[in-house]
Amino acid sequence: MFRNLKKLLIGRPLKNEELTGEKFNVLWGLPILSSDAISSVAYAGEEILWVLVPAIGLLAFKQMFYIALCIVGLLVILVFSYRQTIDSYPNGGGSYIVAKDNLGDNFGLTAGASLLIDYILTVAVSITAGTAAITSAIPSLIPYSVLISVAIVIFMTVGNLRGLKESSRIFGFPTYLFIISMISMILYGFFKVYILKIMPTTPVQVPAGTESITLLLLLRAFSSGCTALTGVEAVSNGIPNFREPAQKNAKITLILLATIVLFIFGGTSLLATAYHAVPTKDVTVISQIAKQVFGETFMYYAVQVTTMLILVMAANTAFSDLPLLLSIISRDKYLPRQFTKRGSRLSFTNGIMLLGTLAVILIIIFKGDTHSLMPLYAVGVFISFTLSQTGMFVRWIRLKSSGWKHKAVINGIGAIVTFVTVISIGATKFIHGAWIIVILIPTFVILMKLVRRHYKNIATELALTKERLAKANEAIEVKEFVIVPLESLNRASFKSLCYAKHLCDERRIVALHVTTDMEEAKKLQEKWKEYNISIKLVVKYSPYRDVINTLIKYVESQEHESKPGDIITVVISKFIVRHWWENIFHNQTGSFLRHELLKDRHIAVVTVPFILDK
Amino acid sequence: MFRNLKKLLIGRPLKNEELTGEKFNVLWGLPILSSDAISSVAYAGEEILWVLVPAIGLLAFKQMFYIALCIVGLLVILVFSYRQTIDSYPNGGGSYIVAKDNLGDNFGLTAGASLLIDYILTVAVSITAGTAAITSAIPSLIPYSVLISVAIVIFMTVGNLRGLKESSRIFGFPTYLFIISMISMILYGFFKVYILKIMPTTPVQVPAGTESITLLLLLRAFSSGCTALTGVEAVSNGIPNFREPAQKNAKITLILLATIVLFIFGGTSLLATAYHAVPTKDVTVISQIAKQVFGETFMYYAVQVTTMLILVMAANTAFSDLPLLLSIISRDKYLPRQFTKRGSRLSFTNGIMLLGTLAVILIIIFKGDTHSLMPLYAVGVFISFTLSQTGMFVRWIRLKSSGWKHKAVINGIGAIVTFVTVISIGATKFIHGAWIIVILIPTFVILMKLVRRHYKNIATELALTKERLAKANEAIEVKEFVIVPLESLNRASFKSLCYAKHLCDERRIVALHVTTDMEEAKKLQEKWKEYNISIKLVVKYSPYRDVINTLIKYVESQEHESKPGDIITVVISKFIVRHWWENIFHNQTGSFLRHELLKDRHIAVVTVPFILDK
Repeated sequence: MFRNLKKLLIGRPLKNEELTGEKFNVLWGLPILSSDAISSVAYAGEEILWVLVPAIGLLAFKQMFYIALCIVGLLVILVFSYRQTIDSYPNGGGSYIVAKDNLGDNFGLTAGASLLIDYILTVAVSITAGTAAITSAIPSLIPYSVLISVAIVIFMTVGNLRGLKESSRIFGFPTYLFIISMISMILYGFFKVYILKIMPTTPVQVPAGTESITLLLLLRAFSSGCTALTGVEAVSNGIPNFREPAQKNAKITLILLATIVLFIFGGTSLLATAYHAVPTKDVTVISQIAKQVFGETFMYYAVQVTTMLILVMAANTAFSDLPLLLSIISRDKYLPRQFTKRGSRLSFTNGIMLLGTLAVILIIIFKGDTHSLMPLYAVGVFISFTLSQTGMFVRWIRLKSSGWKHKAVINGIGAIVTFVTVISIGATKFIHGAWIIVILIPTFVILMKLVRRHYKNIATELALTKERLAKANEAIEVKEFVIVPLESLNRASFKSLCYAKHLCDERRIVALHVTTDMEEAKKLQEKWKEYNISIKLVVKYSPYRDVINTLIKYVESQEHESKPGDIITVVISKFIVRHWWENIFHNQTGSFLRHELLKDRHIAVVTVPFILDK
Repeated sequence: MFRNLKKLLIGRPLKNEELTGEKFNVLWGLPILSSDAISSVAYAGEEILWVLVPAIGLLAFKQMFYIALCIVGLLVILVFSYRQTIDSYPNGGGSYIVAKDNLGDNFGLTAGASLLIDYILTVAVSITAGTAAITSAIPSLIPYSVLISVAIVIFMTVGNLRGLKESSRIFGFPTYLFIISMISMILYGFFKVYILKIMPTTPVQVPAGTESITLLLLLRAFSSGCTALTGVEAVSNGIPNFREPAQKNAKITLILLATIVLFIFGGTSLLATAYHAVPTKDVTVISQIAKQVFGETFMYYAVQVTTMLILVMAANTAFSDLPLLLSIISRDKYLPRQFTKRGSRLSFTNGIMLLGTLAVILIIIFKGDTHSLMPLYAVGVFISFTLSQTGMFVRWIRLKSSGWKHKAVINGIGAIVTFVTVISIGATKFIHGAWIIVILIPTFVILMKLVRRHYKNIATELALTKERLAKANEAIEVKEFVIVPLESLNRASFKSLCYAKHLCDERRIVALHVTTDMEEAKKLQEKWKEYNISIKLVVKYSPYRDVINTLIKYVESQEHESKPGDIITVVISKFIVRHWWENIFHNQTGSFLRHELLKDRHIAVVTVPFILDK
C-alpha cells in the first residue's frame, strides 16, 4: 500500500541512463537561472522602507533612492567579478568549489555552510513573500498565510522528489511573465506620475519619523536592501546547462540579468517614492504600487500572481541546487553519504526532504512572516560571495596567467566590497537575528569536519590489508556452540532447533528457557521429555522479570570460555505476521535480544522466520 | 544513559517475591477504597445545577433537593445489592468477572469495555475537577489549568510505574482530611444559615430561567447527578485487601461509605440551595459555598486543598484498578498479552502508560474542562452496574441456594433501577457526548473478540503434535546454499565470508555485490583477485538504484531451485557503532534487507556483527 502511494506521488522509477539535461540558449537560460535573483526585487525595496519609514518618515523616500543606487553599484561589481569566475570554472564554479580550490578546505566548508543556510532561507523567504503577494490581493486569506506557505513547500517537495527538472522550459515562463508585468507597471506608472501628473486622490499617511538620518541607519537600510542581490551566483553555477558556447552564453545572461534587476529595482524604488508606499504587515509595497498604478484591474492581479509565480520558481532553484551541493559536499565525505544517493526518480531524495522539512519548520517558527525572516537572510549569501571572490583573487595571484593583474584587481574589488557588505549586514542585523547565523556557520563547519573524521577513522579500521588478511585467516574461528532461546515448545521454536542442528553437533547446542514462573518451566520440561527432544534444555529463573538480561548473562557466561575472535551463534525464531499491526499482539523479545546481542562482537545471530499462514 | 534515567524515575527493580500487599481493617480500608466514590460529591452537585439553573433559575434549588434525594435512594439500593456481591465473590467481584461468570463472555466483555472507558474518564474528570478546586481558590492559575492537569497525570503515571501501591496507608489520609473539612463546612454552614440566620450581604444574582419544569429536565438533572455514585463498586472489588473477616469488613465499609456520601452530598446540596450557588466556568460550587461559610480564611483554603487531594486519590484508584483489569482481560486472551507483564517495579507498566496517555489526550481535547467531559462519564459505570446486578440476579435463579428468592429480589431491583438509570443517562446526554460511548463500547467488544480469535488461530497453528513432529523431522532440511551480500571488500564483509565458510562447503557460497556503477564493480572484482579470495563473486547491476530489490530477486531466483521446507541462509555483516547517532552516517541497507528477506519462510538470516573500536 505504501509502495503504491509512493508510486502515485513520485512516479515510476527512472533508469540511471535517463539522467540527461536539456541544454539552453540565452533565451531560456536567462529566465530559468535568474528567477532567484530577479524575484528578490519583490521584497528588497520593501525591506529598505521597513528600516527607513518608521525612523525618518517622509525623508525615507529620498534616502531610499540613494541606497538603491548603491545596491545597483554593488550589482555591477558582482557581475564583472562573476564573469571572471565563469571563465575560470567552465564546469560550474559554486562558492564551495572556488573557495575550497583556492583557499583550502576550511574556507570551502565555510562557504558551503553559508550556502546551505541560505538555500533554506531562500525557500522560506520566497514562499512567504509569494504568499504575501496573494494575501495582499485577497485579504480574506491573511489568517491562512502560514497554512498556504506550508502547503506550497510540501507541494514543491513532492514535485522535486518526482524529479521536476529545473531544465524544463516551462519554468522559464513565470520569469518572463513577471518581467513583463513589472515593466508594464513601471512604464505605465512613470507615464501617470511624470507625464500625466496623476497622483493619488487620498495620499498615504506617512508616519512622522522618530530618529534623524545617521550613517548607522543608512547602513541598516543598505543591508536590508542587499537581499536584492541574492541568487546572482546561480548563473555561474549553471554553466553546464548552457548550449555551446556555454561560457559566452552565461556571460551574456549575467549582463541581461543585471540589466533587468537594475531596471525593475530602480523603477519600483522610484514609484514607491512617488506614491509614498508605507510597508505594513498585511499589504506588500509592490501590491500598493500596483494598485495605485492600475487600480483594481486585471493588470493589478496579474502583477500579484506573477510575483507569486516567480517567487515559487526562486524557491525551486534552491530545491534543485541545495541537494546538488549536499551531494558534492558529502562526496567529499563531509556529510553523511546518504546525500549522494539518487532516488528512484534520479533526484537527491534525502536532500530534498531535508530542505522541505527545514523550510516548513522555519515558516512555522516565524509565523509565515517574510519581514521577520529577513535578518537571517543575506548574511550567508554575502559570506559565500566574499569567499568566492577572495578565492578568485588568490587564484590570479597564484596562476599569474595572461592579464592576471587586471583580473586580480576586479576580483579584489569584488572581495573587498562584498566583505564590507558582510560586516555591514552582520553588524546592523546582529541583534535582530543575524547572530543565529553567526553561531550556525562555524557550528556546521565543525560538524562537517567531525563527520569527515568519523568516515576516515572507519575507513582506516575497515581496510583489508594483506597482513590483516593473513592474521584474520588464522584467528577467526566459529566456536562450535549454538544457543537457542525459546519461550515455549511450538512449531516455530522447533524449526529453530532443527536449523541449529545443521550448524553444529547436537551435543554443542543448548535450548535456553528463561522463566518468571517455575510452574511453567516445569511444564516445558515435561513436554520436552514427552516429545523426546535430544537437545539439552537449560532453564533460568529471572526474579526481576527481565528475560532479555537473563538471556544475555547466560550467553556471556558461555562467551567467557571462548577464545578471542571466536563466534558463538544464537538462533532466534521470529514470527512473521501478515500485517504489520499484528506485531502488537506479540512480544518483541526476539528483536530486543538480537539488538542487545549484536553489541558484542563474538556473537552471530541467526533469525529463523516462521510465517503464520492465517 | 536511558537506563540511568529510567532507574532514577522508576526506582530499583523488585523481585517477584516482593509482590505482597498490606491488609487493612475498616479504619484504613474505608478511606483507601472509597476515595473515588466520596470524591464524586466534589462535582456531582454542581452538575445538577449546571442543568437546572440556566433552565429554571431560582426554582432550581428546590428541585435540586428532590433530585439529591433520588440519588441517595439509588445509593441505598446499590449498597444492599453490592453487599450480596461481596458475599458471593470473596476474591473480589468486579463487573467483568460477575457478568462473564453468570451472563457469558459477551456481557462480560461489555462490562469490561464499559469499565475501561470509565476508568480513563475517572482520571480525566477527577484531575480536571481537582485542578478546578485549586484555580477556584487562586484565579491567576486559570490560564494554566490544562498544563496543571496534564502535569499531575504525568506525575501520577511515573508514580504508579514506581509501583505506588494503593495499599499504602498514607493514601488514606487525604480522604479523612476531605471528610473532616467537608463535615466542618456543612455543620458550620448549617449553624450560620439555620441558627444564626446569617445570609450573604450581597446575594448572588441567579439568572432567570428560560424553560419550565419538565420531566425531561428533571431526568437530565438526575442523570448528571448520578456521577456521585461512580466508584461505589471499588469496595466489592477490593475484598482481598481486607483483614479477616474480610467480607464482614467490606460490608461495614460499604455502609460507612454510603453514610458519608449521603451526608456530604445531602449537606452540600442544602447549602448550595441556601446560598444560591450558581455554577460558573471559573469557580466551583463547592468553592462558592466554602467561601460563603468560612470567608477567605484558612478553612476555605483547607476545603479547596483537601478537595484537590481526594480527587487525585480517586484518579489513583483508576491507576491501580485499570491495569489490573487489563491484565485479567488479557489473561483471558481478549487483549494483547503485553498487559499481563509486570514491569521491573512489579506494576503493570503497559496498562499504566496507556491510561496516562489516554487521560492526557482527553484532558487536552476537552481543554481541561470537567463540565464538558461529564456527558461521557457515568454511562459506562451504570452499564457495568446493570450487568453486575443482572449477573447476580441470574446467579440466584440458577443456584437456588438458601434465601435465594429474597436475594434475587434485591439484585433484581438493583438491576432494574440501574438499567433505568442507564437509559436515562444515555438518552438525556446522548447528543452532548454519550453517543461517543454508545459507539465505543460495542467497538471495543468486537475488537476484543477479534484479538481472542487471532491468538486462538496462532495457537492452533503453532501447536506441536506428534504427527507434525514426525513430518517436520523429515521435511526441514537446510539447503547447503549461503549468500553473502556485500558492498565492498573490507574487514567486516571478510568476517562474514569467514563465518559463511563454517556454515557449508566453499563451493556452495556466493558473495553477491549489487552495483549502480559498473566501474566500481570492476574495482571490486580486481580486489577480489588481488586478495585471492576463493569464494565466487556475483555482480548484479541495478539500473534503478534499488539495491535491496535486486538482492532479493537474486535470492528468490536461487530459492526456486530449492525444495519446499529447505532453508537458504543469507549472511549479513553489520557495523556496530558505539553511539546510536553514528548510525546516521551509514546506510541501513543490511537492516532493510534482513527485514525484507525474513518475509520469506525459506530464508534464515545470519547477522555477523563487526564492532568499530574508534
